[in-house]
Amino acid sequence: MKIDGRWRRAIEESDDRASIVILDQTRLPYETHWLRLATLDEVAAAIREMRVRGAPLIGVTAAYGVAIALAAGVPLDRAIELLAATRPTAVNLRWALDQMRAQLAAGARAFEAAATIATDEVARSEAIGTHGLPLIRRRAGSPVRVLTHCNAGWLATVDWGTALAPIYKAHEAGIAVHVWVDETRPRNQGLLTAWELAQHGVPHTLIADNAGGHLMQRGEVDLCIVGTDRTTRDGDVCNKIGTYLKALAAHDCGVPFYVAVPSTSIDWRCTDWRTIPIEERAGDEVRSIAGRGGTMQITDGPVANPAFDVTPRRLVTGLVTERGVVAASREALASLFPDLAEPAS
Amino acid sequence: MKIDGRWRRAIEESDDRASIVILDQTRLPYETHWLRLATLDEVAAAIREMRVRGAPLIGVTAAYGVAIALAAGVPLDRAIELLAATRPTAVNLRWALDQMRAQLAAGARAFEAAATIATDEVARSEAIGTHGLPLIRRRAGSPVRVLTHCNAGWLATVDWGTALAPIYKAHEAGIAVHVWVDETRPRNQGLLTAWELAQHGVPHTLIADNAGGHLMQRGEVDLCIVGTDRTTRDGDVCNKIGTYLKALAAHDCGVPFYVAVPSTSIDWRCTDWRTIPIEERAGDEVRSIAGRGGTMQITDGPVANPAFDVTPRRLVTGLVTERGVVAASREALASLFPDLAEPAS
Repeated sequence: MKIDGRWRRAIEESDDRASIVILDQTRLPYETHWLRLATLDEVAAAIREMRVRGAPLIGVTAAYGVAIALAAGVPLDRAIELLAATRPTAVNLRWALDQMRAQLAAGARAFEAAATIATDEVARSEAIGTHGLPLIRRRAGSPVRVLTHCNAGWLATVDWGTALAPIYKAHEAGIAVHVWVDETRPRNQGLLTAWELAQHGVPHTLIADNAGGHLMQRGEVDLCIVGTDRTTRDGDVCNKIGTYLKALAAHDCGVPFYVAVPSTSIDWRCTDWRTIPIEERAGDEVRSIAGRGGTMQITDGPVANPAFDVTPRRLVTGLVTERGVVAASREALASLFPDLAEPAS
Repeated sequence: MKIDGRWRRAIEESDDRASIVILDQTRLPYETHWLRLATLDEVAAAIREMRVRGAPLIGVTAAYGVAIALAAGVPLDRAIELLAATRPTAVNLRWALDQMRAQLAAGARAFEAAATIATDEVARSEAIGTHGLPLIRRRAGSPVRVLTHCNAGWLATVDWGTALAPIYKAHEAGIAVHVWVDETRPRNQGLLTAWELAQHGVPHTLIADNAGGHLMQRGEVDLCIVGTDRTTRDGDVCNKIGTYLKALAAHDCGVPFYVAVPSTSIDWRCTDWRTIPIEERAGDEVRSIAGRGGTMQITDGPVANPAFDVTPRRLVTGLVTERGVVAASREALASLFPDLAEPAS
């Protein structure tokens, strides 16, 4: 999508085709800084430090990491092991690494295999946008008021985004939209969402994570759309911490709650959402806040920092996938993705 | 409660008995700064700027503000009008001003009337602690894990607190408690809660506002206790923005959700919670965050900042009042406070 009026992607190949260039998301929204990653260690660190973040983008970055590692003579298994360990919750990461292994075994060249994964990711995002557009178009409001949590925009994918893709499609189609953007403490990814919406010219308002329930109570939200880091085969959604609270409020207030689900986020082996590992991130993310001019400490006391929660499928109105919108259920997902679904055990 | 091992109150009379001294809560938890308020304008500004905050403490401060104004020859009506306009949502503010007017009409001396309101406030808080203690004592856990939102501690009252009073009583009774403290963006009153719990030696962990639902899903919360800025006669609770989201999660996860309700927070005339005015505070509270060393801007984009939300009574397990614990219903409240309840219209 657009930065300063130019179309860009969150990850791009260098001209040398031996390294990649990413938009350093730890410096956004204050600085637009492109960072070149030329070694396996640099790629792994960029994922771990959340310089790239968002489940789909993590997968694509890891795929390129494999290509970069192989070009430097690092054994494939070592590269995959190191990259797989960078973040525990998102399932796209492992999916992308599995894809790379399969493509390489089939004789593909590593950089081309990674580029294919990136291209497919963009196609999936755009298709999610196309399928999600009618959900916005059919609302009466002018503007249609959409609430989102965290950043599931093009910064989190490669282009278009997942949750934001239908919003961009609506904006491009001339439909008036207004986005309520959750701040998303502790890392404030809402600021990334606000930044990319502003760059693309989409009206929006940043709110504290506490505010969304009140706005829904007062009838000021027409629908919610969020992303997912891991979706169970039954349609339960593991996404950024706090998503569950917004889903509860939407359910209580009769506001439709949609989840944008690229098929790469579906964990077909997960039969119980309670078994999904929830990443506990560093306490300093809660103890400090990043802002203009750096990072400020707000406390030095005891903190906890779980990074994700699960929204049970009973709270989800529908899943917006690259093949269409379906109910959050095993049957619906399996019938939409018969080629991917594993037989029920 | 204790600061550096000494028992203090959040508002104290000066030795001259013509001014008051408050703990400046905008400088906590980074600085323990006591501020002398000697004029009506200073008192009104301290309330408006949230140097004192918390519904009960606002009421007591306003009562002293009346006394200070009268001593300087300001007409009673002007003083009450100015003080009533400082904050729109808390009902204790108006209650305290009405009390002052009634006491003065009955011939009381102004400073003594204000001191009586303060003393009564402390007695109410301590009684809430006494009545709430069994709710903690009866839980099996060791420690008993309590989640709270915002600051309804002694900083928000004068001593003991409302939501924190049962926790302090449990701690004093030797019961092991552990408090999950919501950060409470945008103003991070959770840092005040963490600070006062730390000063008093009560174990606690600060969490992002997004985290509580996940902790309840995982069975890591035994009960929730929050305060209230305005309670309808039917038992609906208007409290700091985000309270509603935690009540929804508690309800969904089967976690008891209690509200500490001093009778002074009950608006006996409010028959529909949708009519409660919700204060929209300055956008800069969302655009910036206060921390060690000052205030940092996180965005200069569009923001919204509603300060309160309503938790409907169906989500409330019980109200902990100074006369006992009751169901959140008109009948229960009216039978507990027959002297205060107004006849149903």
